[in-house]
Amino acid sequence: MERKVAYYETDRMGIVHHSNYIRYMEEARLSWLEENGLAYDTLETIGIMLPVISVDAEYYKPLKFGDTFNITTKLIALTNVKITLSYEIKNSQTNQLCAIGKSSHCFVNNDFKPIAIKKTNPDIFKLFKDSLI
Amino acid sequence: MERKVAYYETDRMGIVHHSNYIRYMEEARLSWLEENGLAYDTLETIGIMLPVISVDAEYYKPLKFGDTFNITTKLIALTNVKITLSYEIKNSQTNQLCAIGKSSHCFVNNDFKPIAIKKTNPDIFKLFKDSLI
Amino acid sequence: MERKVAYYETDRMGIVHHSNYIRYMEEARLSWLEENGLAYDTLETIGIMLPVISVDAEYYKPLKFGDTFNITTKLIALTNVKITLSYEIKNSQTNQLCAIGKSSHCFVNNDFKPIAIKKTNPDIFKLFKDSLI
Amino acid sequence: MERKVAYYETDRMGIVHHSNYIRYMEEARLSWLEENGLAYDTLETIGIMLPVISVDAEYYKPLKFGDTFNITTKLIALTNVKITLSYEIKNSQTNQLCAIGKSSHCFVNNDFKPIAIKKTNPDIFKLFKDSLI
Repeated sequence: MERKVAYYETDRMGIVHHSNYIRYMEEARLSWLEENGLAYDTLETIGIMLPVISVDAEYYKPLKFGDTFNITTKLIALTNVKITLSYEIKNSQTNQLCAIGKSSHCFVNNDFKPIAIKKTNPDIFKLFKDSLI
Repeated sequence: MERKVAYYETDRMGIVHHSNYIRYMEEARLSWLEENGLAYDTLETIGIMLPVISVDAEYYKPLKFGDTFNITTKLIALTNVKITLSYEIKNSQTNQLCAIGKSSHCFVNNDFKPIAIKKTNPDIFKLFKDSLI
Repeated sequence: MERKVAYYETDRMGIVHHSNYIRYMEEARLSWLEENGLAYDTLETIGIMLPVISVDAEYYKPLKFGDTFNITTKLIALTNVKITLSYEIKNSQTNQLCAIGKSSHCFVNNDFKPIAIKKTNPDIFKLFKDSLI
Repeated sequence: MERKVAYYETDRMGIVHHSNYIRYMEEARLSWLEENGLAYDTLETIGIMLPVISVDAEYYKPLKFGDTFNITTKLIALTNVKITLSYEIKNSQTNQLCAIGKSSHCFVNNDFKPIAIKKTNPDIFKLFKDSLI
């Protein structure tokens, strides 16, 4: 996933506000899901949602307006009830590392009840398993 | 409605990003509705939503981080299918006018179908009518 | 300018929050400026900023998560001190009109003082004039 | 720090988008700084900024539109170059724990160069030290 920084994503320090990297990670995650045959709207149609249960980020080199960045997303952990992804955000022009992050998500149904994906949706579980690094 | 500017609402020009005034107007509108016995979550429970059909704003004196502002909201038009509200955003410390705006909303049900509020919910229509300036 | 709706841009009505169209219009404006030789960071380097003095939008067909949209931007008015642009936001899949809008901007220097661009920067003024529809 | 959830902070899952808790934590941090004699705009005037170097959050019970929440902020670590704060976000109506988080910040000057606060601004360092739990 690659895109330019939007003007409205900057703050008065003149850099991208740190909360927006959490949003960038979501964009990267949804792209990653789609590329792996797990498009989020398809999952929601089947009745599976992936609410965030934890998130973290470390900031190295701030992105500014005018910059283009890319994000490398990896599925680094998978259990019957939960997944964890990692993100590496780099400035596309300089290749400098801007931030890294992780997010964990549980599998829930449309009523927000946790589901054991391996049993309820073995085909979906397999797609996640095949994407695990 | 009165509150302080949040840091994340500023942009690299060092002022509140213009899109946030549209959000401030929404906050003011929901406060106004509540004060007039028309709390938005109550309306949603009855099955009435008020999606925005148009919005405008004029910007005079930019708000900055550290500023406190207040918004005066008025219902300026009401028909069987639509309402229009006006907003006046002032800096609470200097009393300077920062921005003015308007928003129009139609009445729809939970399926986003327009409803003629006067017929379907005469009591709600009356509350709006009593609040008209 | 074309892109997909981000998940975080939706609200609990299940549609893109109306304030985000104002941000989409900014993205379209900055693309338009760049395509016309007037990249915003270049303007800022020269010492010209284009703060928003007014904005309006009319909403027709809501965008949802999963949708791709495109925006057609036009410079519809230019004076010595001010420009006005119009925006047409369409769903790229269905070609349906989602929203239209306008924004006006004055020319200011780095101290936020209005400047008469035709005198101070005739070459910039010419680029705007050549882009006028 | 206590306030209501804004409508525009919700997403199509019907809950507050997870990135907004990172913004809530910033609001709580700036309130905390102000209450401890360290108002952020004062710090910026002296020439001290506190960019975020890392952030994390764990989500327990989602906040929804209509909810009021409060945040308890604590300074949990202080060195010559860096501070760490913790946040506890609770639903004010139910007293349920909604999320916890932490953020770390380095001291930099207006040129984003790291500064050793204990030497450069011993009075500011003392105020932080007195606020350490």
